[in-house]
Amino acid sequence: MAEQQGNMPHQSALFTDLYQLRMMQSYYAEEMNAVAVFELFFRKLPSNRNFVMAAGLDNVLSYLEHLHFTDEEQDWLKQQGGFSQQFLRQLQDFNFTGDVFAVPEGTLVFENEPVVQVIAPLPEAQLVETYLLNQIHLQSVLATKAARVVSAARGHKVVDFGSRRAHGTDAALKVARTSYLAGANATSNVFAGRAYDIPVVGTMAHSFIQAHPSEYAALRAFIQEFPDTTLLVDTYDTLAGVRKVIALAEALGQDFKVEAVRLDSGDLGKLAKESRRLFDEAGLNQVRIVASSGLDEYKIQALLKEGAPIDGFGVGTQLAVSGDAPEIDFSYKLVEYASRPRMKLSSSKELLPGRKQVFRFFEADRMKRDVIACFEENSDGKPLLEQVMSQGKRLEQGRVSLENAREHARQQMALLPPELHALQRVKLGYPVAVSNSLRQTNEQLQRELAVELSPRLSAS
Amino acid sequence: MAEQQGNMPHQSALFTDLYQLRMMQSYYAEEMNAVAVFELFFRKLPSNRNFVMAAGLDNVLSYLEHLHFTDEEQDWLKQQGGFSQQFLRQLQDFNFTGDVFAVPEGTLVFENEPVVQVIAPLPEAQLVETYLLNQIHLQSVLATKAARVVSAARGHKVVDFGSRRAHGTDAALKVARTSYLAGANATSNVFAGRAYDIPVVGTMAHSFIQAHPSEYAALRAFIQEFPDTTLLVDTYDTLAGVRKVIALAEALGQDFKVEAVRLDSGDLGKLAKESRRLFDEAGLNQVRIVASSGLDEYKIQALLKEGAPIDGFGVGTQLAVSGDAPEIDFSYKLVEYASRPRMKLSSSKELLPGRKQVFRFFEADRMKRDVIACFEENSDGKPLLEQVMSQGKRLEQGRVSLENAREHARQQMALLPPELHALQRVKLGYPVAVSNSLRQTNEQLQRELAVELSPRLSAS
Repeated sequence: MAEQQGNMPHQSALFTDLYQLRMMQSYYAEEMNAVAVFELFFRKLPSNRNFVMAAGLDNVLSYLEHLHFTDEEQDWLKQQGGFSQQFLRQLQDFNFTGDVFAVPEGTLVFENEPVVQVIAPLPEAQLVETYLLNQIHLQSVLATKAARVVSAARGHKVVDFGSRRAHGTDAALKVARTSYLAGANATSNVFAGRAYDIPVVGTMAHSFIQAHPSEYAALRAFIQEFPDTTLLVDTYDTLAGVRKVIALAEALGQDFKVEAVRLDSGDLGKLAKESRRLFDEAGLNQVRIVASSGLDEYKIQALLKEGAPIDGFGVGTQLAVSGDAPEIDFSYKLVEYASRPRMKLSSSKELLPGRKQVFRFFEADRMKRDVIACFEENSDGKPLLEQVMSQGKRLEQGRVSLENAREHARQQMALLPPELHALQRVKLGYPVAVSNSLRQTNEQLQRELAVELSPRLSAS
Repeated sequence: MAEQQGNMPHQSALFTDLYQLRMMQSYYAEEMNAVAVFELFFRKLPSNRNFVMAAGLDNVLSYLEHLHFTDEEQDWLKQQGGFSQQFLRQLQDFNFTGDVFAVPEGTLVFENEPVVQVIAPLPEAQLVETYLLNQIHLQSVLATKAARVVSAARGHKVVDFGSRRAHGTDAALKVARTSYLAGANATSNVFAGRAYDIPVVGTMAHSFIQAHPSEYAALRAFIQEFPDTTLLVDTYDTLAGVRKVIALAEALGQDFKVEAVRLDSGDLGKLAKESRRLFDEAGLNQVRIVASSGLDEYKIQALLKEGAPIDGFGVGTQLAVSGDAPEIDFSYKLVEYASRPRMKLSSSKELLPGRKQVFRFFEADRMKRDVIACFEENSDGKPLLEQVMSQGKRLEQGRVSLENAREHARQQMALLPPELHALQRVKLGYPVAVSNSLRQTNEQLQRELAVELSPRLSAS
């Protein structure tokens, strides 16, 4: 498998759309090497989201720091044909020399607000579009989903069980990372635990029960090795399984250290109540109840609403694929080149021109409203975009530990107006305005571009 | 970033759920090292799917061939604590020694049909669950989506533009791979083109137009470098853009080699018709029209139905995330251990016990019905599961080039009954029966397991 050799996709300059390389060649040929500003933002909140939690910046900065074309990659491009000798020579010394401004990971963002701003020579800023979108999109989709799940769980533990249904290995790792960022407690993925230094937890699978001569024998064997584990009790019949755990407690006495049981099928609310009652009657109040099986924020909210005595939630598929909103319309758009603002007018894909800043206003310890403004505008609001990279080097502001980003995410959720924690879309969402100055720039540029709308050719 | 060092997730034995490692330790401690059979299958077709196209086997076999714990990984596990010294020693020489049976990539499969069958010592077969599910799930979700898009495009070209919205770098590569498998013509992802040796294509982006003093100047500059390219015409106004391409043709005469224009916004059907008319009136019948912008199989079908003269489709987000069915309920379940069939009874997650084969029957050059049977049953039908790995080594049957798998996928789609090509769910879907013999095994095992359902403890 070629993909398993050499530079990995997330490190490789070839992880890009072919058109980026073609445009680069053309920019170099025209000596269009002036500074461009690209902004990464989304236009529309998915239908049942009241916010997006921005994530993925750490990977983006790591990618930009290491970006280069290896000798093998240059040879391969040469063999493909279609590129000029001059361009291929220019790739030899290519690296990213630009500045990056961004909102810190875990920040809540809204429609049309720049999340990442790349200020770099045009060819460099163009090449990186594909990877930047790929990672900011994925990780923001996942962090947003995880923030909703954590919010619905109201302080109960949430664990990422999503590796098997995440879209590939990279997504599986990023589910673990972004879930933790958004407040989940742990992941089941061992590789992710090692990569991000986050807690890893694991229970047992049905196959373990099935492989043994009886459920009781299986449970007894497992706690021989892992006394303080979580036991799975629904392989044959949940309440019969619970009774076997109680029998084990009676048999083992002081040596019984089982922390929890896991319910993985059936009416979880009802089974949790009956299991709790059985354990409490047996004097096993310390045994916790953990639930899994197709959970998402809606089901967790419903279970807690009906008073299900569930202490922790294992969330898999829906945390991993964000099934009700698997995509957000993130774009990466040129807003300025050679110190002139730029825009496009494509039908229903309009673009606010020029380099921007987002100012956030607060009231009574909550976020109140945002204003999207020209970058250099003065405002009493708190600017969201901070410089995280200078001339291709990561700044201290761009080195945020996952723990610190998690704390920032927690604070952001605490600042969110209570009504926007709803799992359904709130009619009057969070207010985001455009500043007068930005609106004027926009109108002026529209007038200047009018010539492009006529069938006559422009002067050039 | 730790994830960028050492073994990559898709090669690492640590890309697994923690519970797999815990169960392994327990199996080793109990000397439960006999042969297990696990089957990977899905229970329910997503609501608007009439088939699933199986994919991902090549990656799975590559993973199994190379599976081991590196010294660093062993050290890390040791540092974590929680595992026995004996188990950690056993990991030193761990590799996968089992057999694998599977349906070839590109095969169309249905509910409850095993797609991959792993026959290996229990601890080995257990460890690999997470990666096998991760890849077969992802690639089958994507191949199925791509097969629908290709089918809807009715012979018109389909190109994967999905890298930026795919869920991570691995998914982006797999979108390219599975789309090609399912009949798409090319990808925009350069890394994927190199990794899988598939055609890579690219046009240009709005930023290129915006960065230039005028749209005309941009188009002219781009064909200077890439004369036979595809030009993007919707940055300011689509038909004004088309007229600029026509003016370019007039200016360049014989040197005008532009192959196509790309429409990326607005009413694509109407704009394609008007663009076609403008080009034809200008004598530019050879200029093709390519469309992109939020396309999926439903929109492509509608565009072709209204007679839109579109020659090729660039499909991005929906091909990449399969938004209408981002997940399939694939599971990997123990069906046999130490030569005895196994099952579970968890509510609405029942399992057909024992090692199985799927036999397919044909009539008048179409697939007619499938029978899920015990593995050793005789049948006139064509068995779908083939041996692809023996004692950890890939067999010739397991080495299928992507081109050959693509041809197999094409034949499979040609064998699918015409009504099942519908984009909506067909009421009476493809018939899949369970053989009498398998039904009897199932009933017998249910009787044997009755003891587990009673509150009394079993003998052991």
